[in-house]
Amino acid sequence: MPNVMASEEQANSEVPQTLEGWYVLHEVYRLNWPAWRSLPADRQTALAREASDWSVSPVEPKRGDSAVYSVISQKGDLMWIHYRPTPDDINAVELSFRQLGIYEFLEPAYSYFSVIEVSLYEVMAIAMKRLADRGLKPGTPEHESAKAEEMERQKAHLSERLYRKIPTQHYVCFYPMNKRRGEQVNWYALPLAERRAMMRSHGTIGHKYHEIVTQVIAGSTGLDDWEWGVSLHSDDAVTFKKLVYEMRFDPASALYAEFGPFYLGIRTDAVGLEALLQGHLPTPP
Amino acid sequence: MPNVMASEEQANSEVPQTLEGWYVLHEVYRLNWPAWRSLPADRQTALAREASDWSVSPVEPKRGDSAVYSVISQKGDLMWIHYRPTPDDINAVELSFRQLGIYEFLEPAYSYFSVIEVSLYEVMAIAMKRLADRGLKPGTPEHESAKAEEMERQKAHLSERLYRKIPTQHYVCFYPMNKRRGEQVNWYALPLAERRAMMRSHGTIGHKYHEIVTQVIAGSTGLDDWEWGVSLHSDDAVTFKKLVYEMRFDPASALYAEFGPFYLGIRTDAVGLEALLQGHLPTPP
Amino acid sequence: MPNVMASEEQANSEVPQTLEGWYVLHEVYRLNWPAWRSLPADRQTALAREASDWSVSPVEPKRGDSAVYSVISQKGDLMWIHYRPTPDDINAVELSFRQLGIYEFLEPAYSYFSVIEVSLYEVMAIAMKRLADRGLKPGTPEHESAKAEEMERQKAHLSERLYRKIPTQHYVCFYPMNKRRGEQVNWYALPLAERRAMMRSHGTIGHKYHEIVTQVIAGSTGLDDWEWGVSLHSDDAVTFKKLVYEMRFDPASALYAEFGPFYLGIRTDAVGLEALLQGHLPTPP
Amino acid sequence: MPNVMASEEQANSEVPQTLEGWYVLHEVYRLNWPAWRSLPADRQTALAREASDWSVSPVEPKRGDSAVYSVISQKGDLMWIHYRPTPDDINAVELSFRQLGIYEFLEPAYSYFSVIEVSLYEVMAIAMKRLADRGLKPGTPEHESAKAEEMERQKAHLSERLYRKIPTQHYVCFYPMNKRRGEQVNWYALPLAERRAMMRSHGTIGHKYHEIVTQVIAGSTGLDDWEWGVSLHSDDAVTFKKLVYEMRFDPASALYAEFGPFYLGIRTDAVGLEALLQGHLPTPP
Amino acid sequence: MPNVMASEEQANSEVPQTLEGWYVLHEVYRLNWPAWRSLPADRQTALAREASDWSVSPVEPKRGDSAVYSVISQKGDLMWIHYRPTPDDINAVELSFRQLGIYEFLEPAYSYFSVIEVSLYEVMAIAMKRLADRGLKPGTPEHESAKAEEMERQKAHLSERLYRKIPTQHYVCFYPMNKRRGEQVNWYALPLAERRAMMRSHGTIGHKYHEIVTQVIAGSTGLDDWEWGVSLHSDDAVTFKKLVYEMRFDPASALYAEFGPFYLGIRTDAVGLEALLQGHLPTPP
Repeated sequence: MPNVMASEEQANSEVPQTLEGWYVLHEVYRLNWPAWRSLPADRQTALAREASDWSVSPVEPKRGDSAVYSVISQKGDLMWIHYRPTPDDINAVELSFRQLGIYEFLEPAYSYFSVIEVSLYEVMAIAMKRLADRGLKPGTPEHESAKAEEMERQKAHLSERLYRKIPTQHYVCFYPMNKRRGEQVNWYALPLAERRAMMRSHGTIGHKYHEIVTQVIAGSTGLDDWEWGVSLHSDDAVTFKKLVYEMRFDPASALYAEFGPFYLGIRTDAVGLEALLQGHLPTPP
Repeated sequence: MPNVMASEEQANSEVPQTLEGWYVLHEVYRLNWPAWRSLPADRQTALAREASDWSVSPVEPKRGDSAVYSVISQKGDLMWIHYRPTPDDINAVELSFRQLGIYEFLEPAYSYFSVIEVSLYEVMAIAMKRLADRGLKPGTPEHESAKAEEMERQKAHLSERLYRKIPTQHYVCFYPMNKRRGEQVNWYALPLAERRAMMRSHGTIGHKYHEIVTQVIAGSTGLDDWEWGVSLHSDDAVTFKKLVYEMRFDPASALYAEFGPFYLGIRTDAVGLEALLQGHLPTPP
Repeated sequence: MPNVMASEEQANSEVPQTLEGWYVLHEVYRLNWPAWRSLPADRQTALAREASDWSVSPVEPKRGDSAVYSVISQKGDLMWIHYRPTPDDINAVELSFRQLGIYEFLEPAYSYFSVIEVSLYEVMAIAMKRLADRGLKPGTPEHESAKAEEMERQKAHLSERLYRKIPTQHYVCFYPMNKRRGEQVNWYALPLAERRAMMRSHGTIGHKYHEIVTQVIAGSTGLDDWEWGVSLHSDDAVTFKKLVYEMRFDPASALYAEFGPFYLGIRTDAVGLEALLQGHLPTPP
Repeated sequence: MPNVMASEEQANSEVPQTLEGWYVLHEVYRLNWPAWRSLPADRQTALAREASDWSVSPVEPKRGDSAVYSVISQKGDLMWIHYRPTPDDINAVELSFRQLGIYEFLEPAYSYFSVIEVSLYEVMAIAMKRLADRGLKPGTPEHESAKAEEMERQKAHLSERLYRKIPTQHYVCFYPMNKRRGEQVNWYALPLAERRAMMRSHGTIGHKYHEIVTQVIAGSTGLDDWEWGVSLHSDDAVTFKKLVYEMRFDPASALYAEFGPFYLGIRTDAVGLEALLQGHLPTPP
Repeated sequence: MPNVMASEEQANSEVPQTLEGWYVLHEVYRLNWPAWRSLPADRQTALAREASDWSVSPVEPKRGDSAVYSVISQKGDLMWIHYRPTPDDINAVELSFRQLGIYEFLEPAYSYFSVIEVSLYEVMAIAMKRLADRGLKPGTPEHESAKAEEMERQKAHLSERLYRKIPTQHYVCFYPMNKRRGEQVNWYALPLAERRAMMRSHGTIGHKYHEIVTQVIAGSTGLDDWEWGVSLHSDDAVTFKKLVYEMRFDPASALYAEFGPFYLGIRTDAVGLEALLQGHLPTPP
């Protein structure tokens, strides 16, 4: 469990403080359908069963989570998402996957490595607002003792965000992104206060969609080719369009966001994956 | 049917309101001609028949539409366009396609996923103009009751645009595009009024070609790598050049448009597709 | 035959008016030499003969023209250029080509689709200058009647440009290009007069090389990924370097041109193509 | 051993003086798992043993060093890092690697060639600071004689940096980078003093992580496609994110750094490599 | 032999005058080592001998020169450089190469086509300086007659540069480059005088390395995708880094140069190439 109190002291620097949770791997593959379909029926069934067992077998809650999606368009056929405690655990998942019989029929199409992150500033702002809402004034003994309690609450809540399950909604939209470092328009050259004001306004839009879209933000500076990997989970795919389009007019995105490729997937369970590998999508629940 | 009245109330925000209809998938493939031609004649005929049945079999009107095109240049040999109610339906089309015998001879070359959209502002502007043309003044009871009627009319008309058939003209020109988010020239940083004025002028050019080109605009922010997928349908291919070139001098495009690859196709029916798969294009109708 | 008089009336708009002639397809291929060389000699000879017959068989003059080139560097081995009246004719050429026995040994390397264009303004400017040279003053009856005659002349001349044969010089240099739409430097945001002044100066350089280089300008806005495809034909390859380099200092290019890849080819006839397919370039004529 | 004294005299020019040590090659490969897994067990074991012997057999200390890593994500499966005295030695390593039995199952995914460099200015600054800390004043005989001694010390220390072993930490993060040469923001157009001030501040951040991250900076201007190849070595992977993110707010990076792809690897020894080639990652030490 | 006197008269225009010599082709290939190594020993020996004979057999001095290099990194295994009088000769070399037995085991990795060029201005400047050094004043009869002599000298010297042998040093560094045509920073929009001043300063750096690096500048505007192909030849590879890095601070490069990929090769002779094809690099001379 990260030490929130210790990190808090660094929160005045120009660099936003973050807390990190589980490591995340997105893996997209194309299926070589003709080769796959040329397999004898019993071999195909056995390999599909093996793949589906591997994909949806429950992960011990403290060890992360895994999920599989059917991908729309030629960008891929299947996408796996894995949450795990360490890079070594992620690498072990990869290695175990490469030993499956179906792997012979899969062609790598895209992957992304990141780590779930929570902004410490955002956490502190929530805690401070809760204290203020209770009428407590900073500097008073009541405030100090309430702050300690509040921090314990936030810690528990943080755990739920940093070490969470993969949201279970029907659709996922994944894309990597950067904050722009242009010659005139450069996020990293702005004062922290200006960045915070923009992120607050940006967060407001996310919050507006809060009940129908679950966002998982994972940082990847120094880990992969973009700075963040964003996963949106929703039961209504058009919401991805509405949300991302609305954010595009928000200054934090309008001026400063650079987007990588977008991957759209439909969540699949064991029965669904086996059906899909026989060429038909099961009726959505 | 989307609720126009509810959406209307949001129309003052800086974010243009849109209504969404059917989801759209464009899929371009190259045919492995040497492998295809090495098939025994009867096998080739059977697979061509199966592919042609699949491609042009009528879709139940409430379930969308499909069409197939012969693609010019090395960008591909064949392009399929599908309109469907949900992403799951689009994914089901993909899966069913991958089970065809001809799929073994096809190499994915490009795909694009989007959803037909209509600008709410554009709809409202048309309705208001029609009321004004009848001499009705906003705020009067006559205007209010006429507005309700007019809205019903527009709803019916909207349905025809959002849940339409694929236009049947001989040629299609497909390209994805973005509005520019440059460091100085940034569409998303403009005031709504300025964007609307430019889109009106832009629409005027489209209208000028209205009788010889049918445009289908589909939004794809958050769904695929560009913000829109544009399909132009016409019986005169040189019109694509004239229209796109004229628009390029219009500020909305001159300053703010970024274009992806262009795909040009010739519409083909069942007889045409089977002829094409035997290596000759049937005489255009 | 396009109606010059009708188009002339539109010539005051900000959008340059153009006339279009034949559609053009450039196709570059790599030859899989090891597989090709492993063919039995008689089979190789038969396929080379078939390919050479196809490539250089005369096209009916009203139906266009075709030519084949040996390409320098790893960008390709062979390039075909086709001029045809319609996109359907171009597509038919492609389909017929894919049925040749040699096609099995060819790998697509590049293609470009465009349509020969002539600037109406340029044509009018020439006509008006010819009338002025004869001392005729605009508005006089003499000028009016001479103008009608002159227009007939220009029409005939236009036909020679829009529906021409592929120039027969030994070398070809092909490249696609755009006019820049940068954030500060944007061709499409310039007034027409300024664009015309630059194009006149640009044309002067082209004219200077007129006797040793034949230019064929084909428009491709809305047809392929760039706005123009430029083909230079000359018996002296170093002239391509001299011409393109000199133009690069001309404002129309220095500030506004964006260039795609360059392809350099050596024209080949039936004997030459068969020799080349046996691995040696025939002595240039 | 480079002559520090001679180079020192050039240190006033606008061009930063550097000293170069060993040449460095990073090589990333994907393993063709299905083909590899289809080998008979004894053949697989023999090839894995050969590869592991080759990868971890100690290099004579004066001849450089080699190490092997398991790569996270689809960017690759394995990465080798080699330090060697000359480009010929690096080329000899490549050639010897291509003769291994396992090479048949490897697909090249990325490589980078560079040479370890140390900034002469940084070395001089350290030496001068040490003299100043001892209370010695420039120009005095004491300073002169102490300087000579100090230089000997620095020479010895330099050797340890230029001809070092590959750091042994559990994780490596490799990425190539450039200093930006933008139209307005151009590192190479800044005065040396300004560049030095920024690099000092930049170095301060690196120093802050000194105990948990070892940086190896290798120059590659004129040798490969970027200007530097940076390797970070740490036992804590999240530190790569923290370090690179913090640097991103530092002006030297915020304004002037351009980054290539990032590769993340887990160091593997002989036992580990053989285990990995059997599909499982050994428990980290 | 180009006519220097005639060209001289054009030297006042804004376009730098150049003289062209031999055409140049760089070709980089990867060797399919596993397939190559699976050949029977005698077949491998025969093909290696054939390739080495082809690569190093002396070219008639008036017909150009050829050389072969071992390439460092995954960018390629082998690079051939050819100088020839005409594009047809270059194309003939390509065709003859594709007939070698080893070609079946080679995969094209990069190629570049250009023509050796010498700046006429640079030649004139040298000549004028030589006359001035002798105390001769322009306009005097002595100056005129000395100038004629000097021109004869320069002509002879030019021949040595335009129709030279490939430099024989141990290492080669090849890269293509452009002069920038940015929106604010545009080489082609500068006055000639400013460009000349920058090129003089640029030349000074090249001159400083003159004894240890031989530069061959070849123009490729209109011939390939960049404007120049630069080859540096040296017996000391670190010099490439020093030279290119120092030039990067020179305004002609700092502001105006855009660089393509860099290829580093080690020169190989017949014995060396045969050894290399058996998997080991011969000890450098």
